[in-house]
Amino acid sequence: MWDTLFNQVEDHFNELVAVRRHLHQHPELSFKEFQTTAYIADYYRQLQIPYQEKVGGNGVVARLVGNYPGKTIALRADFDALPIHDQKEVPYKSLVPGVMHACGHDGHTAILLITAKLLKEIQHQLKGTIVFIHQHAEELTPGGAKSMIAGGALDDVDLVFGTHLWSSAPIGVIQTAPDRFMAGADKFTITIQGQGGHGAMPHETKDAIVIGSQLVTNLQQIISRRLDPLNTAVLTIGKFQAGDSFNIIADQAVLDGTVRTFDPKLQDQIIDEMDTIIKGTCAAYGASYQFDYLKGYPPVINHRQEAQRILEVSKQINEVEQASFVQPSMTAEDFAYYLIEKPGAFFFTGAQIAGNFQPHHHPKFDFDERAMPIAVKVFLKLIQSYQ
Amino acid sequence: MWDTLFNQVEDHFNELVAVRRHLHQHPELSFKEFQTTAYIADYYRQLQIPYQEKVGGNGVVARLVGNYPGKTIALRADFDALPIHDQKEVPYKSLVPGVMHACGHDGHTAILLITAKLLKEIQHQLKGTIVFIHQHAEELTPGGAKSMIAGGALDDVDLVFGTHLWSSAPIGVIQTAPDRFMAGADKFTITIQGQGGHGAMPHETKDAIVIGSQLVTNLQQIISRRLDPLNTAVLTIGKFQAGDSFNIIADQAVLDGTVRTFDPKLQDQIIDEMDTIIKGTCAAYGASYQFDYLKGYPPVINHRQEAQRILEVSKQINEVEQASFVQPSMTAEDFAYYLIEKPGAFFFTGAQIAGNFQPHHHPKFDFDERAMPIAVKVFLKLIQSYQ
Amino acid sequence: MWDTLFNQVEDHFNELVAVRRHLHQHPELSFKEFQTTAYIADYYRQLQIPYQEKVGGNGVVARLVGNYPGKTIALRADFDALPIHDQKEVPYKSLVPGVMHACGHDGHTAILLITAKLLKEIQHQLKGTIVFIHQHAEELTPGGAKSMIAGGALDDVDLVFGTHLWSSAPIGVIQTAPDRFMAGADKFTITIQGQGGHGAMPHETKDAIVIGSQLVTNLQQIISRRLDPLNTAVLTIGKFQAGDSFNIIADQAVLDGTVRTFDPKLQDQIIDEMDTIIKGTCAAYGASYQFDYLKGYPPVINHRQEAQRILEVSKQINEVEQASFVQPSMTAEDFAYYLIEKPGAFFFTGAQIAGNFQPHHHPKFDFDERAMPIAVKVFLKLIQSYQ
Amino acid sequence: MWDTLFNQVEDHFNELVAVRRHLHQHPELSFKEFQTTAYIADYYRQLQIPYQEKVGGNGVVARLVGNYPGKTIALRADFDALPIHDQKEVPYKSLVPGVMHACGHDGHTAILLITAKLLKEIQHQLKGTIVFIHQHAEELTPGGAKSMIAGGALDDVDLVFGTHLWSSAPIGVIQTAPDRFMAGADKFTITIQGQGGHGAMPHETKDAIVIGSQLVTNLQQIISRRLDPLNTAVLTIGKFQAGDSFNIIADQAVLDGTVRTFDPKLQDQIIDEMDTIIKGTCAAYGASYQFDYLKGYPPVINHRQEAQRILEVSKQINEVEQASFVQPSMTAEDFAYYLIEKPGAFFFTGAQIAGNFQPHHHPKFDFDERAMPIAVKVFLKLIQSYQ
Repeated sequence: MWDTLFNQVEDHFNELVAVRRHLHQHPELSFKEFQTTAYIADYYRQLQIPYQEKVGGNGVVARLVGNYPGKTIALRADFDALPIHDQKEVPYKSLVPGVMHACGHDGHTAILLITAKLLKEIQHQLKGTIVFIHQHAEELTPGGAKSMIAGGALDDVDLVFGTHLWSSAPIGVIQTAPDRFMAGADKFTITIQGQGGHGAMPHETKDAIVIGSQLVTNLQQIISRRLDPLNTAVLTIGKFQAGDSFNIIADQAVLDGTVRTFDPKLQDQIIDEMDTIIKGTCAAYGASYQFDYLKGYPPVINHRQEAQRILEVSKQINEVEQASFVQPSMTAEDFAYYLIEKPGAFFFTGAQIAGNFQPHHHPKFDFDERAMPIAVKVFLKLIQSYQ
Repeated sequence: MWDTLFNQVEDHFNELVAVRRHLHQHPELSFKEFQTTAYIADYYRQLQIPYQEKVGGNGVVARLVGNYPGKTIALRADFDALPIHDQKEVPYKSLVPGVMHACGHDGHTAILLITAKLLKEIQHQLKGTIVFIHQHAEELTPGGAKSMIAGGALDDVDLVFGTHLWSSAPIGVIQTAPDRFMAGADKFTITIQGQGGHGAMPHETKDAIVIGSQLVTNLQQIISRRLDPLNTAVLTIGKFQAGDSFNIIADQAVLDGTVRTFDPKLQDQIIDEMDTIIKGTCAAYGASYQFDYLKGYPPVINHRQEAQRILEVSKQINEVEQASFVQPSMTAEDFAYYLIEKPGAFFFTGAQIAGNFQPHHHPKFDFDERAMPIAVKVFLKLIQSYQ
Repeated sequence: MWDTLFNQVEDHFNELVAVRRHLHQHPELSFKEFQTTAYIADYYRQLQIPYQEKVGGNGVVARLVGNYPGKTIALRADFDALPIHDQKEVPYKSLVPGVMHACGHDGHTAILLITAKLLKEIQHQLKGTIVFIHQHAEELTPGGAKSMIAGGALDDVDLVFGTHLWSSAPIGVIQTAPDRFMAGADKFTITIQGQGGHGAMPHETKDAIVIGSQLVTNLQQIISRRLDPLNTAVLTIGKFQAGDSFNIIADQAVLDGTVRTFDPKLQDQIIDEMDTIIKGTCAAYGASYQFDYLKGYPPVINHRQEAQRILEVSKQINEVEQASFVQPSMTAEDFAYYLIEKPGAFFFTGAQIAGNFQPHHHPKFDFDERAMPIAVKVFLKLIQSYQ
Repeated sequence: MWDTLFNQVEDHFNELVAVRRHLHQHPELSFKEFQTTAYIADYYRQLQIPYQEKVGGNGVVARLVGNYPGKTIALRADFDALPIHDQKEVPYKSLVPGVMHACGHDGHTAILLITAKLLKEIQHQLKGTIVFIHQHAEELTPGGAKSMIAGGALDDVDLVFGTHLWSSAPIGVIQTAPDRFMAGADKFTITIQGQGGHGAMPHETKDAIVIGSQLVTNLQQIISRRLDPLNTAVLTIGKFQAGDSFNIIADQAVLDGTVRTFDPKLQDQIIDEMDTIIKGTCAAYGASYQFDYLKGYPPVINHRQEAQRILEVSKQINEVEQASFVQPSMTAEDFAYYLIEKPGAFFFTGAQIAGNFQPHHHPKFDFDERAMPIAVKVFLKLIQSYQ
C-alpha cells in the first residue's frame, strides 16, 4: 500500500507545479492572506477532508482521521509572501506589484496539499490522525504559529514536523540538526530625531542622515568588537528611511533592523550594547532618539530523536543523495513555537536551481520545483514510520 | 501722490494677511501650482491690469503701463510650496497633507499682488511700466525663471528686483550684497547597487545600507579635507532611501543631495572628488553605482548700483531699522537667471518671529506677517526712485 | 613512590613562587631572552640533569632518562615576555620599563623547573624519558617552537604536553578540548601613503590619519558583514602610528594587526576582503598603500585521546574541582607546531585571582600563584599514567 | 647712497646661500636652538652691531642706532626647525636625523643677517634705529614672540615688519593683506582611555584604536556640518599614536591636533562641539577620555597703512612682478603678538621652486634661494621709506 502511494508522488508533479505557480502569481502579505486561505480551504473541501478556517487568524487546519488508532502527527506549511517586487522573468511571475513569494512558502503549501491528497487515498488503512497545519504570517512578527497554537492547532498532537525548501542546498539534499537548527530573530526600530532645515545651512540643523549613517557603522562594531568571537549573532539594518527632498536637511531618520541569536543572554547583551551606542552617537550630535526592540521568534530547537528519524527515512528515498546534520542557520522560523510545545523537528529540502543561485528574500529568488515531490516523499515516509 | 500711496500700505495689512493665509492653506508643489496660478490671474483680472497666463509654464506676468514714458521695471515673486508636512499649530495651517509653504513664497505673492493694487491707483500719473512677474517652481530644478524669461517675462525690461522674506533676520532689517548674494545650487543622486538577500545571511549579500552609510560619512570629508578652507561650499545629502523590510538586506540605496558653491571651478573640483570617493567606497565593498549630477541654479550675483539703491530707499522707511550689505547666503534662488539678463538686485526682508525662530524648509517654519508691508514699501520706494 | 612525590609538591610552593617572581622582575622580550635562558640552564646544571642550550635560538632542552625503558614524553614551557609596561602595584613588579610578563610565561617556567626537580628524585625508578622543552619566543612570529623542533627538541619523543596558566578560569579548573583548542594567528601591516603638509592646508595633502581611521572602521565590516555568521574569526588592529607633530598633516599611517581563524579557507577569504577594502578606501582618497600579510601560527589541534587523558588524570587531583572540555579559544600558541609533529594535547590551568580579573596582555595582568602546584600535579599524573 | 646699497644686495647672494645652507644642515628644534643662537650672536659680534642674547629664551636682539634721529623700526626673523626627517636629495640636506628646516626659517635668518650687514655700512647716514629681532621657537606653542616682547624686544619700537618665504607663491611675488592675514592656531590633545587586552579577545576590552578612529571621522563633521559654511576653520589631527604591538588591543589612543580660526567666537564654538562629539563617541563605547585644548597664537592682523606701504615699496623692486593683497592664509604665526603691540605688517615672499612645489612642513620642502635677495630688498626699501 505505502509503496503504491509512494509511486504515485511523481504522477502528481504537474499538480504540485500548478498549485505552486498559481500561488506564486497571487502572493499575499502576512496577515492579509485572504485569497490564499480560501484557496486552501477549497482544496480540502474538494478532498472531503474536514478542516477549520480562521484558526488563530488566517490559518487553516485539516484533520485526516485514520481507520485505526495511532499517533496524531502534525505537518505544517506556511503560506504568506513578502513585500518584495518580483524581478525574475518567468511565465509564473507575481501578478501583484511589490509582493512576491520570495521564500518558497508557495511551494510549502503545494507540498502539504498534495501530501494530504495522497494520504486521503489510504485513509481506510491509516493508523492515527494526520493534522495539516496551513499557517499564515510566518514572515512577520508576531507570526501566525503562536496564535494558531492558541487556536488549537496542536491539540491532541503527539509529534510535529515541517520543512523549508532551501535554495542554499542542491536538489537531493535533506538537512536538519539534532538541537539548534535556526536562530531566534528580533526586530528593532531606531528613530533618530535631529533638527531639519535648509540644505544649505547645516549649522542651523542636526542632520539626521549623517547621524543615522554613523549609527549604521557604529552598530556593526557590536558584532566585531563587543561580542565573544565564538558566539554567533547577526545585526542587520534592513531599512533606512530619511528625508523628503534633496535640498532639505532631514530632521528624522528611521532605521529598521533585525538581530539573530541562539542564546537569550547574548540577545540581552546585544540590546544593552545597542542602547549604549545609540545613546552615545546621538549625544555626539545633540540629537534625541527612540529605540524600540521587539523580541521575536525564539530559536528553532529540534528534538534529537525526531531529527534523527528525518535522516533515517530520507535515506530510504531514491532522489535523496545526502541526508545529514548541518550547522545551524541564522535564519528564523516561528516553527520554533511548535517545538516548544511538542516533540518534533524541522528540516530543509534542497531546492537550488543549478547554476542560478539566488538567496531567499532576493527579488529574483526561485527554486527548483523538482524539490517538491522529494519533500512530499519525506512527509509520507515519516508518517509511514509511525504506522 | 507717492506719500499718500505710501500711507495706504498699512491699510492693506489685513488683505496682505488674508491673501497670504489663503495661499498658505492651499499650497501646491513646484510645477503643479494650478490653483495658485488661477488665484493670481483672477486677482489681476479684478484689478483690471492686463496679464498673461502660462508664461513658461504656470507663470503669470502682468504689466501696468504708466501714463508717461519711463523705465520698465520688473518685480518678481515666486509662489510654489514644498513637500513638507506642516507641523505648526495655527489656524491657517496647510490643508494639504505633506505639502507646505515652508519658505515664505505665499508671502511673496501677497506682497506683489498688493504692490500691484496700490500702483494701479496711480497708473495715470506713473512714468514707465511695471512688470509683475509671478514665477512658479522656484524650489525645484530647473526652476521656473529660465522658462519664464524664454517666455518673454523680461522683454523690454530695464531693471529687475525681487525679495525673499527671511526668517534668519528680525523684522525691520533689509539685507542685500553688492555682488555675490546667494550660492549656486546643484542636485545629485547616487544610486548604490549592492546585492540583496536574507537579513540573517550578510555574507551572501552586499549590504547597500552599510555602503551608503559609509558614503555619507566619506563625502563629508570633501568639505573638511579636500577643499581650501578659505573656499565656501556645502554638500548635503537630504534623502537616504534604502530597503523595504527590517529583515531583508537592501540591494539598493538611493542618496539625493545638493552642493552649494559660488565658483564654477570649485563646483567642478567637488564633482571630481565625489566621483573618486563614491568609486572607492563602492569598490571597497564590491558594489556598483550610478552618480547623476545636475548643475542647478547659478549663484545670485547682484548688480552693485541697484543693490546700493535698495539700501538707500530702505533707509527712508520708518519701519526699517537696519539696511546693510551682509555676507552672502549659501541658499540658492533662480532669481539668478534674471540678473544674468538684466541689471537689478535681490534682497532679504527680515521676517523672524521674535522668540520662535524656525529655519526655512522646517516643518514648523512661519514668519512675522508684519514683514509684508515693509517689503511692499521697499518695492514702492524703488519704483518711486526711478520716476 | 608516586604518592610520596605527589605529596612533596606543596612543599615546593615557596620555590615555585620564588622562581616565578624572579623571572617576573626580569622579563625579556621574545628572541632576546638571554638571561632567562642562562637562569634555566643553571637550574638544570644544579639538578644535574643534562641539557642543551641554544636549541633553535634561545631554547633549552633537558632530558631526564629513567632507569627503565618506556615512552619518551615531552613537557613544554615558554619563557618570553611582552612589550607592555607593568602597571600593577606588587613587590615583584617588573624591573624593566616597558617589558612585562603579562601572559604567565614566568609561571610556566617555574612549573616546569619544579616538575623536573621532583622527577629527578625518582629517576632510578622512572620508566622512559622525560624531555623538558623550555621554549623562547612564543609571543612573536615566527615563534620559537618551529626552530626548536628543527633543532631536535622532539627527536625520539612519543608524546608532548603543555599548559597555559589561564586568567579567564578560576583556580581548580582544568580546561582542554578534543580537537580545535586554540586559533591560528596571523600578523599584518598596512602602510598608507598619503601626502603630508601643513596642518592648516588640508587641500594640498592626503591626510593619512583620516584615511587610516576610515580603514580601521571599514575593516571591522569584514567580521560583521562579509563572513558567514557561523564562522569564527577576529580581526584586530593593535597599533596605529601616524604623524610626528600636532600641526603637520601625516603623510603615512602604519597599522599593525592580527587575524585569528581556525580554518585556512576562511583565512584566505579574510585576506581577499582586506585587500578589497584597503584598495577601495585608499582609492577613495587618492592614497597608495602597502599591505603585508604574514600567516602565523596554525591552530592548536589537540589529539583526542591525549586530551581525554588530561581530563582523567586531572580528576584524580584534590585541588581540581572541574576538568572538562570547553569551547576553543581565539588566542594562538605555537604549541600548535608540536601537535602537528607528535600526538599530545595542550590544556589551560585556571589561575584567575578571585575578584581581580585582568585579561592576558593587560598592563595589570597577574595570576593566582596557587595555580602553579596544580599544574605541576597534572604533569606528574600524566607521566605516572604512562608508567 | 640707498641706490648703491641696493645694488650691493645681489653681490651678497652667495653669502645668503652660504648662511642659509649652513643653518639648513644644522637644524635645531624649537626651544633648543642653542647653536643657532650662538651662530647669530657671532655674526653680530663680527659686524660690530651691539646685540643681546637670551632675550625671552634663545632670542637674539641687535640694535643698529643711526647717526640721526628717526623712527625705531623692528625687523623680525625666526630660526627654529621642525621634527621632520629631511627626505630631499641635496648637498645641503639636514645632518640631524629627524630634524629639518622644513618651513624656511633658515632663509629668514640669512635674510635678516645680510640686511643688517648692509645697513651697517650706512649707519653714519641712517636716521632712526633698526632693531633686528631673531626669534626662537616659532613652531611650538607658546612660541618665542611673547617672551621676547616681555624681554624687551619691542621696547621703544615704533613699527614692526616681518616676512615669510612662501612656497605657494612663485618667485617675484609679494603678498600681504590689509587686515586678517594669518589664522589663529590652537593645539589639542585627546587621550582616549579604553581597556587593553589580548588581540583575540575583543569582548573583554574597549578597543582604543577603534574608538579613536571613529573620533577622527566624527570630528571632521564639525567643519562640514556644525559650522556656518561662510566661516573659515580647519581641524586637523596630525598625530595618532596607539598600541605597542600588533596582537595586543590598545588601551589608550592619543590624538594630537590643531584648530585654525580667525574669530574667537568660532574658536569657542569648535571647542564646545569637540567636547560634545568626544564625550558622545567615548560614551558609545564605554571609554573615558581627557581633552586638553590649548589656545595658541592669535590671528595675524596686519595694520592697513603698513601693509599698503609694503605693496608700494615692493613695486619699486625690479624682481617683483606682482605685489598685491591676497586672501588670508590658514597658517599661523606668532608674529601676531608683535602686531598686537605695535603698528606693522607681515608679508609673504614668493619662493616656489618652479616645477617642484612642496608644501611647507613637507619632508621634501625646499625653496628657491633667489627669493632671499628679494626679501632683503623689500626690507631695505621699507627702511628707506621712513628716512
